[in-house]
Parts: sequence; structure tokens; C-alpha cells
Amino acid sequence: MSEDKLTPRSENFSEWYNELVLKAELADYSPVRGCMVVRPYGWTLWENIQQALDRRFKETGHVNAAFPLLIPMSFLEKEREHVEGFSPELAVVTHGGGEKLEEPLVVRPTSETIIGYMYSKWVKSWRDLPILINQWGNVVRWEMRTKLFLRTAEFYWQEGHTAHATEQEAREETLRMLNVYADFAINDGAVPVIRGIKSETEKFAGAVMSTTIEAMMGDTKALQSGTSHYLGQNFAKAFDIQFTNRNNELEYAYTTSWGLSTRFIGAIIMTHGDDKGLILPPRLAPIQVVIVPIYKNVEEKARVMEVTERIFAQLKDAGLRLKVDDREEVTPGYKYNDWEMRGVPLRMEIGPKDVEKNSVALARRDVPGKEGKTFVSQENIVETVRAMLETIQQALLARATAFRDANIHEPRDYEELKQVVQNGWAFSYWCESRECEAKVKEETKASTRCIPLEGQPSEPGRCIVCGAEAKRKVYFAKSY
Amino acid sequence: MSEDKLTPRSENFSEWYNELVLKAELADYSPVRGCMVVRPYGWTLWENIQQALDRRFKETGHVNAAFPLLIPMSFLEKEREHVEGFSPELAVVTHGGGEKLEEPLVVRPTSETIIGYMYSKWVKSWRDLPILINQWGNVVRWEMRTKLFLRTAEFYWQEGHTAHATEQEAREETLRMLNVYADFAINDGAVPVIRGIKSETEKFAGAVMSTTIEAMMGDTKALQSGTSHYLGQNFAKAFDIQFTNRNNELEYAYTTSWGLSTRFIGAIIMTHGDDKGLILPPRLAPIQVVIVPIYKNVEEKARVMEVTERIFAQLKDAGLRLKVDDREEVTPGYKYNDWEMRGVPLRMEIGPKDVEKNSVALARRDVPGKEGKTFVSQENIVETVRAMLETIQQALLARATAFRDANIHEPRDYEELKQVVQNGWAFSYWCESRECEAKVKEETKASTRCIPLEGQPSEPGRCIVCGAEAKRKVYFAKSY
Repeated sequence: MSEDKLTPRSENFSEWYNELVLKAELADYSPVRGCMVVRPYGWTLWENIQQALDRRFKETGHVNAAFPLLIPMSFLEKEREHVEGFSPELAVVTHGGGEKLEEPLVVRPTSETIIGYMYSKWVKSWRDLPILINQWGNVVRWEMRTKLFLRTAEFYWQEGHTAHATEQEAREETLRMLNVYADFAINDGAVPVIRGIKSETEKFAGAVMSTTIEAMMGDTKALQSGTSHYLGQNFAKAFDIQFTNRNNELEYAYTTSWGLSTRFIGAIIMTHGDDKGLILPPRLAPIQVVIVPIYKNVEEKARVMEVTERIFAQLKDAGLRLKVDDREEVTPGYKYNDWEMRGVPLRMEIGPKDVEKNSVALARRDVPGKEGKTFVSQENIVETVRAMLETIQQALLARATAFRDANIHEPRDYEELKQVVQNGWAFSYWCESRECEAKVKEETKASTRCIPLEGQPSEPGRCIVCGAEAKRKVYFAKSY
Repeated sequence: MSEDKLTPRSENFSEWYNELVLKAELADYSPVRGCMVVRPYGWTLWENIQQALDRRFKETGHVNAAFPLLIPMSFLEKEREHVEGFSPELAVVTHGGGEKLEEPLVVRPTSETIIGYMYSKWVKSWRDLPILINQWGNVVRWEMRTKLFLRTAEFYWQEGHTAHATEQEAREETLRMLNVYADFAINDGAVPVIRGIKSETEKFAGAVMSTTIEAMMGDTKALQSGTSHYLGQNFAKAFDIQFTNRNNELEYAYTTSWGLSTRFIGAIIMTHGDDKGLILPPRLAPIQVVIVPIYKNVEEKARVMEVTERIFAQLKDAGLRLKVDDREEVTPGYKYNDWEMRGVPLRMEIGPKDVEKNSVALARRDVPGKEGKTFVSQENIVETVRAMLETIQQALLARATAFRDANIHEPRDYEELKQVVQNGWAFSYWCESRECEAKVKEETKASTRCIPLEGQPSEPGRCIVCGAEAKRKVYFAKSY
């Protein structure tokens, strides 16, 4: 399988991506329109992402729960912007148990409505607030053009839904969870995301304010990688989430929602991958180290396997995720290609000479060829491997950050903006009008990605499109 | 909330159950017909169940993956028994993205068909076998009479789907996973299940053989708590899962499937609960120990809280799941009732006298009143608590086993069978004919639960219904 080469990224990035997802056995197409199968290797990556996020959610006081998959159609209609945003994408259940339903049910595209309904049952007093619930699950949005992980009819995600007694608390929560996403993306995914606020056009249907982490992919396109929304009292009013406040007055709650999905697997692929395949950040990799024993005859095998098994046991006991590739029917070279395709961060080779010298060879996935290969002692192998994995984790982040920064431009005028967004991001003053945003999109296909929270100038400037006064700068980029 | 008492079990077991699920905040009714909301306390219990099972699945070589929620209607029709079994229970998506679909999609009631389709793509040679995949997810079956956890339109479960090169391997896998379920149920859930084989009438639609773990609830009714099916080549033929065997001949694979669902939460509730509420087995309890500090004034509070915080930190560091109930607005008595309702296995009380004496009070949830209360030293508190939790775990299993055995009868004749199944199980010779099985069901409402793997007599006997020769004994019981 992995002896077939990938289409080079420089030739056709989209083809490279599609081939890589299949050849690394992350996912497969299914016979159901727009739905994917996440294969074991891809799902283990998702499980590692889940654990990294879930730990952070629990540290910030959240608990998990589960709400129904099917939602009465009328629920969506209770929030005007929400139904307008989601109507075109709904999968609708019209029959159940052999009979036509009185009211159609939609397969949840997101759960603000059904959760809002339940919160209205549970919330009576300020003492019942905040509610800090997260749900891990699947949702369905009827997408016309699909791409594995990036845009599928069914996808997997978590959706947090919180209710608070004050606007301030809810706004703080919105940013807290945005920061949790950024911390996860940067430190575990080695994806140097930028935190910012979505424009009115790009925000979530029903939100007062949407925030996002935006990442730059290897082709310089932007990928929205996680979002956190301040919903104000919009859903509380639609679903009657009222509570008696400390002054004994009835008040609507303030809610938030935030989600990160299997799309993030796409972010990892397109941030780090190269022409040989996937490159996974060690903190999330299903297999952090693959050991390839090398021998030519039975006598060599016995000596090599003894060392291999000892080192395997040491690394396993230390909690590392690893695999010994002891297949007999393929060559070491074939194995190298195979694990390079799957992005295993570190390869350990153990041959007869290594046995003699009490050494092993380590090959970094992120640094090809001789440059990435070192011979290390078998003594302290756990510490050596741990340190190397940490070095790789940091190197991936540094490389992606350098690439991102090299491809963010500050065009002098609109003409230059039109140039730079063809192959990069523009960071420019914008008057925040829908008209200027629409003009850029129409003429360049670049949309506003976010008004970043950091790196804003202290002085106002002129909108790069219309020249009107502008307070803040925004990123314009083509996106997935 | 928990000051309201439950309907006593002896008065109305069903009402007791319904009230307990709501008052312990395990789950809630939803506005969607037959669907439940699993609240955070119930979901954390499910997460602990998931971890206990997932660990065992991985130890036995399985990996997780995800297959589509929506399945083309035609897929179900490819296996005759399968479609007959599931047709009446389907939820059907007829519209997507605002348009009528060419072919309706069903929300998966189980995934043999879609997974079978994918396996046919992945399996070519005996080298590709076995495939050992599990999926955690939600399924929908349009149930007419629902009951929280026990029977809901949507429920949560895991479904394992494996494909093998030989019948023997697949049959071994079927029993391996049945044993995994039994080990989990008995040792983690303290639910003394009985392993056995389902009758032809009761088996899974499409299986060659279904095996089950059957548990006796507190009202003596049986609950099917997990099933493992040997599917033979039925699905392999329907979905064309063919491989080249070692003799270079094309052959259909042999498949299995096995599932355990949120229904098991019902098993835990109805096996261990009492009139004060839930009793959770320590190995699965979301909160294993609740600490209630007791004081009358600020001075006492300072001294008590110092010890409370120290002990909390010690237990937390030891990996125990615990909570300090430091609410000021309710009395200790109220707190006791509250945590008894939620089934926390062990309560620790710390008052001013305990501070003086370097002691704490421990109250076992499973042994009410003074008998269950001991005063122990603060020294070695981690070991003391661990040992006590282990004692509770074993005591719950022993009690449930004694209850089960006291309510299994071996009636001498059919008349006595009709009596005993009114309030217990009958263990009797059965000729394995559908007629006798149907007669018992019609006349007593008891069905065959399983032909147990253990405890079979060495000699044949006479069917308790018709008197014909019978090789094996079966359990007859009313069931959920």
C-alpha cells in the first residue's frame, strides 16, 4: 500500500490530502452520501484529541452529559437566525416505527435548542447557575461538497453549552474556552492557531459574538479549527431559560456554546504533513515510536529480538505508545515508508551492530534522511526517547509558526491585498462593514477569518478596501 | 429534592425505579418521544463503565473506529432475518438539504450492515483477518413503551464487529467477548450475571447463535445485560466479505457482533438500589467517597476544615474519586439523604470530636444505620478507605448473588413452574421446541432467558412443559 507515492503537495495539495487520508488509513469513503468512516488509526488519533480536551474541560469545571440526537423541527424555528442558518443543511426524519410522524424530527446539526429546552426545566434560581455541560457526539449537516474530516455530512465533535447568571460571566466563559482550544491546538497539536473574533457575516447563526481559532494550512489557506460563541440571551429567550436572581427578580440566563470537531484532524494533516505522508505531533500520535528490528539470519534475529523486547518493555512501562514492526514478509525499507506514511514521530532501528555497540538508531520523522538520524546508547533509553519526542513536538510547532508568519502579509493597498491573498493571508485595517467584506470575497475569494485578540495596533487606520476610518485589523484569507 | 422519599420498592418497584432515576439525577425525560437525556451524574457513571470495558477490549486486541449513523434502507434488506427483526423499529430520514432523497436512509438500529459493507472493501486475503473493531456510539430503535435506560428510542452502547478466517476463531471470539462482559459485570458492576445461549426465538435477527449475560433484578425479573453473537457467514454472504484463504480459494468470512448499552445502568440500579435510593459499586461510582464536615461555629469550622482539606488531598492524590460537601445552606442530615439517594458507597463525617481524637466516622451506604458506621484513625486513611471500598464492592456482589440464588427455583412440574416464575426464575429441562417456549410465555409471561453454559446436568431429562426428552436446562423468567 505505502509503496505507492503520494501526489506531491506542490503539484496538487488537495489530491495529496485525499490520497494521504486513505493511504495512512485515517478514514475511508462510505456508501452513504457525504459520510465518512473513521478507521482505527484515525479514531485513535481522535481519542487522543478527546482526552487532551476532556482533561482541560474537567479542569475548568465542566461535566459531560448526553442529549437526544433527534430534535423536533419546531425547536429550530424558535431562534430566527439559527433556523435560517441551519435549514438548508438538515437531515429530516419523517417516519418512525413504520408510521409518518406528526412532527418531523431533525438529526441534530448542533444542540443549542434541545439543550436550551432542558436548561429551562433545570434552572429556577441563581443557585442553579452556572451550568457547565459538555457533550461528545456526532452531528449531521447536509453538505453538498464534502472532503474527509474537513467537511462531511456526519462529523464527530464536542459541544459545550453553558448558562450563567450574568453577561460578564458568560463572556468570560466564552474566552476561557477559546483559550482552552488555543492551548490544546498549540501545545498538543503543534498547530499555531490565532485567536480572534468572527465578523457579523461569519459568526454562528444565533450568536451575539463568535470567537475562533484560525490555523494556516500548508497551502496557506485558513482553517477554522474551533469556535466559542457568546449567545447572549438569544437562546434563553427562545427557550425560556429564566431564573430568579439575587434581587429576587426573574431574569433570562446568558448562554455560551463552543465546539471542536474531527476537522481538527484535517488541521494536523495539513499543518505538518509532507510528500512522504503524515507527520503527527508526539503528544497526540497513536504510535509515538515504532521499533524496526533488522537482521539477516536466525542467529542475528535472536540477538536483535532480545534487545528489541527489552527496550520495548522499558518504553511501554514508561507509558509511551509504541509498536514493534516484526513483520517477516516485508523489508525494513518497506516498513520505513509505511510508518512514514502514517506519521509516526520517531523510528528506532535495532540491528546486530547496535546489539554489539549497546546502541540504537533513532530517525526523526520531521527531519528526513541522515540529518534526522542519530545513534544513541541503550542506557537511559527512556529519557533519550522522551527528550527526542519533546524536541520533535517543539520543532513541529516552530516550523509551523515560521511558515505561518512568513505567509502573513500586510499589504499597502487593496491592489496588493488582492495579490497576497492568492497565496497567503492579509492582515489589514478593515472598517467592519459587510460591503467591504463582500467585495473582497467576490473579487478574491478571501473571507475575513478573524479580528485577532492580540497584535492589534494602538492607533486607528484606514480600511484597506474603502479607506474609511477603521479601528481594528482583520485577517483576510481563502479558507476551507 | 432528596427530602422527598421514594415509593418503597416493595410497594411499586417500577415507580421506585422511575423516581430514583430522576431524583438521583441520572437521567431526565426529553421532549423527544422516547429519547432520554443522560444527566452529568448518569453520564459519568457511563464513562466509568466505558473505561472498564474499553480497557478489556484493548487487552483482547480490539481497536475502536466510527461508521456512519445513517444507513441506506437497501442495506438492511440484504439479510432477510435482519430486516424482519428491525423493520418495525426504524427511524427513517427521507429528506436531506431540503430535498427528498432518492433512497431513504435509516438511523442505525445496529451496524452489522454498514460495517459488513466496509469489511468487504477491506478484506481481500486471509492476511487481512481477523478484523477486530469496536464502535462506541448511539443507535435508534423506535420503541413504543419506553423506560429510562432500560428501553429508550435512542440509547448509547458499544458494538463490536469482528471478521475471521475460520468458524472456530469466530466462535471463540463470540465466547471471549461474552466472558469479557461477564467479568466486567461481576467484578466491576457487582452484578452476578449468568452466561448462556439464547433460544432460536430470542436470538439476534441474523445470528447463527446469540449468547447473553442475564441478570436478576431486585423484583426477580431478568434483564438481558449484554449479548455476543456468532453470525456465521450470514452477513459475509449478504455483503460479500470474501477472502482468499491459505489454500488460495475464495471463501466467505465468519463474523461476530457484541454489544452492551446504557441499559447496564438500569441493571446496576435494580440490582443494588434500596428504598433510600441508589447504591453504586465502588469500582464504577462517579463519587466513591463524600466527605461531610460538621461544625457549629466559626472556630469549629476552622479546625474541621483543616482536617477535611488534608484528608481530601490525601485521598485525591491516591486516585480516589471524591467530593467534599461543604454547602452552608443545608444540614448534615440533609446531605446524608442527598448522597444516599445518589448511591455514594462511602460517607466520611468529620466533626470537632474527630479532630480531637484524630479520627473520622465512616458510614457504608450498603449497610444502613449504626451497623454500617465505624470510627477509624486518620492515620493510614488512604489504606483504610481503599479497604472499606473493596469490602463494599464484595458485599454488594455477595448480597446480589445470594438474592439471585434464593430466587432461582427448580420446579418439579409445569404447575409448579407456573407458580415460581410469578416471583422468581425457574431452572428446568426444556426440549428446545418453539411450541413449549411459546406455551410458557403465553400462560405465564415468562420467556426463556438462556441455556446457561455452566451448571448443566450430566444426564438428559424430561421437558418440564411437554415431557419429551431434553438435553439441557434453561432459565424461564419474566423479563424487562
